[in-house]
Amino acid sequence: MTISEIKGESLQDVQALPDTRGIALDEVGVEGLRYPLLISDARGNKRETVATVAMSVSLADHVKGAHLSRFVDVLHTWRDRLSSQAVTLMADDLRQRMGCATARVALTFPYFLERLAPVTGIASFMDYTCTLTAAASDRGDEVVLAVKVPVTSVCPCSKAISDRGAHNQRGWVTIDARPHTPATGLWFDHLIDIAEAAGSSPVYALLKRPDERHVTMAGYDNPVFVEDMIRTVAGALNHDVRIAEYRIRVVNDESIHNHAAYAQIPWTLTATSRDSTDG
Amino acid sequence: MTISEIKGESLQDVQALPDTRGIALDEVGVEGLRYPLLISDARGNKRETVATVAMSVSLADHVKGAHLSRFVDVLHTWRDRLSSQAVTLMADDLRQRMGCATARVALTFPYFLERLAPVTGIASFMDYTCTLTAAASDRGDEVVLAVKVPVTSVCPCSKAISDRGAHNQRGWVTIDARPHTPATGLWFDHLIDIAEAAGSSPVYALLKRPDERHVTMAGYDNPVFVEDMIRTVAGALNHDVRIAEYRIRVVNDESIHNHAAYAQIPWTLTATSRDSTDG
Amino acid sequence: MTISEIKGESLQDVQALPDTRGIALDEVGVEGLRYPLLISDARGNKRETVATVAMSVSLADHVKGAHLSRFVDVLHTWRDRLSSQAVTLMADDLRQRMGCATARVALTFPYFLERLAPVTGIASFMDYTCTLTAAASDRGDEVVLAVKVPVTSVCPCSKAISDRGAHNQRGWVTIDARPHTPATGLWFDHLIDIAEAAGSSPVYALLKRPDERHVTMAGYDNPVFVEDMIRTVAGALNHDVRIAEYRIRVVNDESIHNHAAYAQIPWTLTATSRDSTDG
Amino acid sequence: MTISEIKGESLQDVQALPDTRGIALDEVGVEGLRYPLLISDARGNKRETVATVAMSVSLADHVKGAHLSRFVDVLHTWRDRLSSQAVTLMADDLRQRMGCATARVALTFPYFLERLAPVTGIASFMDYTCTLTAAASDRGDEVVLAVKVPVTSVCPCSKAISDRGAHNQRGWVTIDARPHTPATGLWFDHLIDIAEAAGSSPVYALLKRPDERHVTMAGYDNPVFVEDMIRTVAGALNHDVRIAEYRIRVVNDESIHNHAAYAQIPWTLTATSRDSTDG
Repeated sequence: MTISEIKGESLQDVQALPDTRGIALDEVGVEGLRYPLLISDARGNKRETVATVAMSVSLADHVKGAHLSRFVDVLHTWRDRLSSQAVTLMADDLRQRMGCATARVALTFPYFLERLAPVTGIASFMDYTCTLTAAASDRGDEVVLAVKVPVTSVCPCSKAISDRGAHNQRGWVTIDARPHTPATGLWFDHLIDIAEAAGSSPVYALLKRPDERHVTMAGYDNPVFVEDMIRTVAGALNHDVRIAEYRIRVVNDESIHNHAAYAQIPWTLTATSRDSTDG
Repeated sequence: MTISEIKGESLQDVQALPDTRGIALDEVGVEGLRYPLLISDARGNKRETVATVAMSVSLADHVKGAHLSRFVDVLHTWRDRLSSQAVTLMADDLRQRMGCATARVALTFPYFLERLAPVTGIASFMDYTCTLTAAASDRGDEVVLAVKVPVTSVCPCSKAISDRGAHNQRGWVTIDARPHTPATGLWFDHLIDIAEAAGSSPVYALLKRPDERHVTMAGYDNPVFVEDMIRTVAGALNHDVRIAEYRIRVVNDESIHNHAAYAQIPWTLTATSRDSTDG
Repeated sequence: MTISEIKGESLQDVQALPDTRGIALDEVGVEGLRYPLLISDARGNKRETVATVAMSVSLADHVKGAHLSRFVDVLHTWRDRLSSQAVTLMADDLRQRMGCATARVALTFPYFLERLAPVTGIASFMDYTCTLTAAASDRGDEVVLAVKVPVTSVCPCSKAISDRGAHNQRGWVTIDARPHTPATGLWFDHLIDIAEAAGSSPVYALLKRPDERHVTMAGYDNPVFVEDMIRTVAGALNHDVRIAEYRIRVVNDESIHNHAAYAQIPWTLTATSRDSTDG
Repeated sequence: MTISEIKGESLQDVQALPDTRGIALDEVGVEGLRYPLLISDARGNKRETVATVAMSVSLADHVKGAHLSRFVDVLHTWRDRLSSQAVTLMADDLRQRMGCATARVALTFPYFLERLAPVTGIASFMDYTCTLTAAASDRGDEVVLAVKVPVTSVCPCSKAISDRGAHNQRGWVTIDARPHTPATGLWFDHLIDIAEAAGSSPVYALLKRPDERHVTMAGYDNPVFVEDMIRTVAGALNHDVRIAEYRIRVVNDESIHNHAAYAQIPWTLTATSRDSTDG
């Protein structure tokens, strides 16, 4: 096989053909790609993890297609040095290699924190689903950190109207936060802490009986609706000077119903963002 | 276009080619097919529903492939007259049309029962996922009814060791039951009742405040582990003279943990089956 | 039990308590509720189907919670007379019963169309996932129709650079369309037709050999990227005078890769909407 | 807080209570637990990965419940030294700590292999879903290795009856293999190679145009049904002297249909097992 054949120089470049329909595309890309990554946290500690990756670029109206193999090329090059900063550089790299106006990268992965059981202090790992998203365009770069955090929630209504007991269930707090630019050291741990503090109690991988007693009573003493949880999270995010904008979604897998209860707040500027805008 | 072209008589029948590897196949078929069906219940009432369908046949070692399009042909023919009896006839029909030793059909669909809230009596529909399976072979026909039923479960340990409250969650009771042949009027409603009775309380689509108070306290007064639920179900099935064999699986979506608790019993003969075997 | 107890008049109304955090909520509701519904199509024909339902209301900043049981109450009342018009009336009803600024309803269900195989003309049902969404607020009502349609897509690049064959796969075309108000007879069938016409070929539940030959060659003669499919759909929607706004997403479950390729266009006004705005 | 309180000595041990229903349970345990693990491959190389874990024990008929927290305790202890051998020791450890007849552990995780594109040789990582299962009982230990491998498959019928092109799609080959005891160096890589060799072509994360041309034509020249793929895999496993027993399942996400085609072979002894049994 000749070098030319290996390079594919004789093969038609169909994607590079012109398109005459006059329709630009916001996003063209790949998704659902699982890849092993090394991600550095806010303190620079590297963690090996497995991410599900989506990458896309915008496509001008006169070009037929995007060269999707370059996405995986770029990912493979950057895979062992990713961080909040590096993922922005990777999006910039992608944008330049594709010669397009905008490039986006989203990495979703399980993130583990060692948690101590509240009474016995026994250690175990809790898993949180996190997403690190970066977009690069000629209007500048943008990063979003997202966390999906399980909590336990005790129903205030059920407790108030019953002589004993109260229904409770696993709930899910999802936060998307866009930090101010340049990045300000915001990392997933902080958002996870905010989410866990909003439930009736955190959820654990390992609880011994004294811990289970503690979690049961702490939850019963602190009943919350999805409406309460989302407002507590919004209050905390709203005054976080590192965050420019956020959105929140809280879901309860209701234990006495065959459906879920939920509350959500769309993308909202924080108080600090609004102040700076007013100023 | 000629009739011959429409019939495809000139097209090669690749599936009918010989295979020389000498390996017979237990199941070849289609799955994940959504289809609108009319299913009659034990009393003959027809219900329109949407099923996810799997159909398969065994394949002899000397034949290359099965003609999969005939599966959908057969399903389309039977789709408006299905019942516990008819699904067996459909499996027989499939077996004959495919000229094979064994044919299997599995229809999974949401099944709704009108339930009354326990205090106010307000009506709503609860959904249960049911599967009707039939197999036809020269050893005779066989039917299996399966139900997946949500319940609420209050943790006996959490209640016993805590001064107040008790963690609880949605649980799932899955029963597979093979009735004695010939079929004996066993239908999904009966299995659903057995499953719901094994939880701390049934789950509802619609509860007003007096109902929520009732469900909360009834559940708190009747705490059960997954081990308790599965044993209650096994006890009920074991003495049901209509059932020959069963298996059970119970899962709790633990409200204080990030994982589920489960218990399961593999296929087990009922007491009546064992007695008849002994006799 | 007294009437008062059944009505729950003595039970505290926790949701109605004041909230002092000053945070209004965009959406509070239920989701993941499966319910049997009767839906009328554009010609008034009723179909029984099973929907997965989400319903929500906005919540003012001074109220603690929404009474979620009323959602299911409203759904149960309307469940046997739903249509494009009726779902808007149901959202209005919900809004009034909840005393809130905005109410939303989203019904997702499998929708079946009888399709004839392209050569033999044999009939079978194809399933499409459709969503009917309505929102009611003091700014007026709004309806969105969404379809998710499977197609087959042959890769133009693979065909152009190979001496024989071309990789192809199942693709998914998702269209969300907001019709002009008042509603204009737009129904799912029309959007499904647009989506199917954009692939290399439609997908079928049942194909005999002459049909398979036809679909194979028709697809091979009409290769399309996700970029081509989305532009074809956008072109068709853009000039549809019944549609005010749309968004599109196309995904290919790539047969030679372990990930998907996708393209998407965010909410976009149609040419007729832009003309009327300009005017 | 006293040591006694931390140890929970005053708290009732509800699980240890007697049960009088006389029903032993095959499996009681936890599932759906995500945990970070270090797994050694056949050559002793350690890999950090994220597993979804299921662990269970059998429960005697006279005991009310299993102490589920001990499962996570055991997992946490073993999490950084897992391998084919160690997972058996972990199951033994679990069995002893729980004082039960049988203990089972199943670890499911994405497993990555660096693959070179077939013409350009460019490297990327392919992901395979693997499961390592161990069971310990007084009848001895048992290990099962399972892999789920994506392939591309070209339809032999479509190719034979069409003048040009052939429909093809992503397929999935799932193999469960029980090695002879004592363990024989069987590892996932070997099963993955067998699965990939059975398709029309392997699937890749990264293909340049010369590679895409190669994969397209290689696949077109090697069309296979699900029946062909499963027989090729069965033939390879049947003569593997390291394997005692296997089962196989192959699924095609049909590109011209709205459903999947599948074939499966239930647990089957290999030729070497049958020979040794005969002897």
